[in-house]
Amino acid sequence: MKIPNHIGIIPDGNRRWAENNGLNKENGYKCGINPGLFLFKLCHELGIKEITYYGFTTDNTKRPKVQKDAFTQACIDAVNLLSKENAELLVVGNTESPCFPKELLPFTERRVFGKGGIKVNFLVNYGWEWDLNLSRLTHKQRKPIDIALHSEDISRIDLIIRWGGRRRLSGFLPIQSVYSDFYVVDDYWPDFIPQHLYDALDWYSDQDVTLGG
Amino acid sequence: MKIPNHIGIIPDGNRRWAENNGLNKENGYKCGINPGLFLFKLCHELGIKEITYYGFTTDNTKRPKVQKDAFTQACIDAVNLLSKENAELLVVGNTESPCFPKELLPFTERRVFGKGGIKVNFLVNYGWEWDLNLSRLTHKQRKPIDIALHSEDISRIDLIIRWGGRRRLSGFLPIQSVYSDFYVVDDYWPDFIPQHLYDALDWYSDQDVTLGG
Repeated sequence: MKIPNHIGIIPDGNRRWAENNGLNKENGYKCGINPGLFLFKLCHELGIKEITYYGFTTDNTKRPKVQKDAFTQACIDAVNLLSKENAELLVVGNTESPCFPKELLPFTERRVFGKGGIKVNFLVNYGWEWDLNLSRLTHKQRKPIDIALHSEDISRIDLIIRWGGRRRLSGFLPIQSVYSDFYVVDDYWPDFIPQHLYDALDWYSDQDVTLGG
Repeated sequence: MKIPNHIGIIPDGNRRWAENNGLNKENGYKCGINPGLFLFKLCHELGIKEITYYGFTTDNTKRPKVQKDAFTQACIDAVNLLSKENAELLVVGNTESPCFPKELLPFTERRVFGKGGIKVNFLVNYGWEWDLNLSRLTHKQRKPIDIALHSEDISRIDLIIRWGGRRRLSGFLPIQSVYSDFYVVDDYWPDFIPQHLYDALDWYSDQDVTLGG
């Protein structure tokens, strides 16, 4: 089986899952934390070299405060849990906004936890316009485009898996995603089971990666 | 039914279609021209305001010359056919490269043909890195990002339809696609039938457009 180097994870459907389970919407996020850790462990076993989780975006922060607080806390908890594993962690997002949780500031430079061995990126208060970051370039700095990105330490993504049935990227790393294969799981993220990942990998195995050639 | 303002068309599978029909790969492209015109007419009837066709990319030009010549000619023929319709045509691509066909230079500023009424964009020798065009910005020109794009006259895309079964954007307008819903048709592009479009629109009708909010 062809294993992708880098998987992007869009863990959508937490609010719909909560409503389906008789909970308030904001209570869905914390039920997405353990699935994230479980998926990390499976990827580690499979030899995947890099994972990027879509935590929350600057657009998401326009939601009601109770939801914003809940998804922010879920991201903090998830990153703290991952820091107890063997992982090379990096949080990427706009730290200059009050929506960025100060608890995650120590993670905004990549750090090795335990034995490392797998890069794990977590997007927190991420915005695609912020990422592209045009204003910091000067005319004299004619550098390749990836140098201009806030997310320059995140590599090209081979496979993006989105839970919750929606078929869109929703601003997820537009540059690293230009050639990504995109797999959608209809189940909501809190209902994650390993078979979702295995099905996505089986499907990816059958894709020919041409990069337009 | 909710009709998208702007549809992106990725007409993939011409070479695979040719091989399945006992032809050389390069003979698939010309069989994609009439489907493109047919789809245009259907979109016009439906009141869709803008269509963008993915012609070919700078990455595609690395393919064998016989294929490159064939897809280039198919794009020239397609644009010439569309110029006989009521349409506001614009060709977007890197005109500074020898891979850009000189026959299409007159279309690189938007022009109204017939009664106009629908914008039609055609990407020819397009490259996402070329489009993002960072080097032309100076530090003093802190403009919104869409001003910096070569494709600045192409609006945000609501729905992208890709034929040929592959589930990736392949560098298609990364900025205009950040929130696009993405629908995949397994059939190859030369086998286009109206039901493909209607199925995509039915599906799109059920999507909630949240833009992250």
